Amino acid sequence: MSEGPPYDLWYWAEIPGRGEFVRLALEAGATAYRDRAREEGSETLARDLETRSGQRPFAPPYLVAGDLCLAQTANILLFLGERHGLAPADPGGRSFAHQLQLTVADIVAEAHDVHHPVAVGLYYRDQKAEAARAAKAFRDERIPKYLGYFEAVLSDRGPWLLGNDWSYPDLSLFQLVEGLDYAFPRRMKTLAGGLSRVLALRDRVREMPELADYLASERRIPFNEDGIFRHYPELDAE
Amino acid sequence: MSEGPPYDLWYWAEIPGRGEFVRLALEAGATAYRDRAREEGSETLARDLETRSGQRPFAPPYLVAGDLCLAQTANILLFLGERHGLAPADPGGRSFAHQLQLTVADIVAEAHDVHHPVAVGLYYRDQKAEAARAAKAFRDERIPKYLGYFEAVLSDRGPWLLGNDWSYPDLSLFQLVEGLDYAFPRRMKTLAGGLSRVLALRDRVREMPELADYLASERRIPFNEDGIFRHYPELDAE
Repeated sequence: MSEGPPYDLWYWAEIPGRGEFVRLALEAGATAYRDRAREEGSETLARDLETRSGQRPFAPPYLVAGDLCLAQTANILLFLGERHGLAPADPGGRSFAHQLQLTVADIVAEAHDVHHPVAVGLYYRDQKAEAARAAKAFRDERIPKYLGYFEAVLSDRGPWLLGNDWSYPDLSLFQLVEGLDYAFPRRMKTLAGGLSRVLALRDRVREMPELADYLASERRIPFNEDGIFRHYPELDAE
Repeated sequence: MSEGPPYDLWYWAEIPGRGEFVRLALEAGATAYRDRAREEGSETLARDLETRSGQRPFAPPYLVAGDLCLAQTANILLFLGERHGLAPADPGGRSFAHQLQLTVADIVAEAHDVHHPVAVGLYYRDQKAEAARAAKAFRDERIPKYLGYFEAVLSDRGPWLLGNDWSYPDLSLFQLVEGLDYAFPRRMKTLAGGLSRVLALRDRVREMPELADYLASERRIPFNEDGIFRHYPELDAE
């Protein structure tokens, strides 16, 4: 499905983070790309970011596509969705796919803020008391609200978020659920009964032939405690 | 510039919030719309939101445009930008405008989390200690980082974010700076010297003929302590 020179993806090499949402779309779309910081190190990324002007990214991930430099995860996916047919082409479907992606982005940001409620510039160990309070609210209110929303979307349509075919937000919802399962396994077990459609979708993405090689490869970075989804047992509960 | 039946905008009636970013684009684009919750009350909005399916919003604001129901602020603005010429039409310009809007959305979310670092479902008075710590980091690190980014974008191009003509992210940057000035006047005064391009852009939007009637009208909702940008003097400092 690829055309022209390969894309350059720039994202921190050590964590799945927001870069993984882009990587899943590139992989599922069989799109040629170079994962520059994984090849050359995150120091190279930091230097590259500093030298960019014009279509200047605020932060990684960003994707260089010929003359274009695209930043913001959802914006990159909007572009890839249109260019490689990873989302519906009609205005309603295109917009709803993007809306779903932005909603995934919102809960991803909240999942990060659970362990960094005071400041992204401080360590977790310097905000543990605040994180414990934030985690309770996230577990009790926010995870059910967001995943309940995606469950409702799947009950409107299904079996995929946009209906009969997979699109890029399905890949992102998969990554979100994987991350929540990693960070909050006890809570996710409690909620599983009300999330049958969301969990079935997660399983369906996990089995996509388009992703089989990638998910089994070393290119797929495991979740870890430097990333967005972190397993701190003291922040999880039933 | 309007075509077809007017749009229906749905957003909470009592605060500018995220709805204001949409309202500014509708007003500057001379686009016919009904501000449904301001006409009929926020209870009507809550009921409307509950009954929607299909293109189901996660939260307000959402815009009903014929058969389409669009949610997520940046997604609505992407649509209005294309439909009403409020952003460049070429792929690079369209994408960069959207990227800037998503970056505004990120700092808007962080500005909200300053007074709600633990949980959106708790009152400010129940998280004041955490908010004081979060505010210091936001003032010292995040405001300079984000506004410095927009300053750099304006130095690449200018006088508007996308170059010679205004586009929807300019309206949003105006609203962001107005909000930060309202919530953190002492800090913003300290930072002003390094933000000459951003502040000049804010002033330029404030004087746009397309916005004169609106900004002088009662439709323009003042910032207040139920919204995203709140003036709690104890959270501000030089």
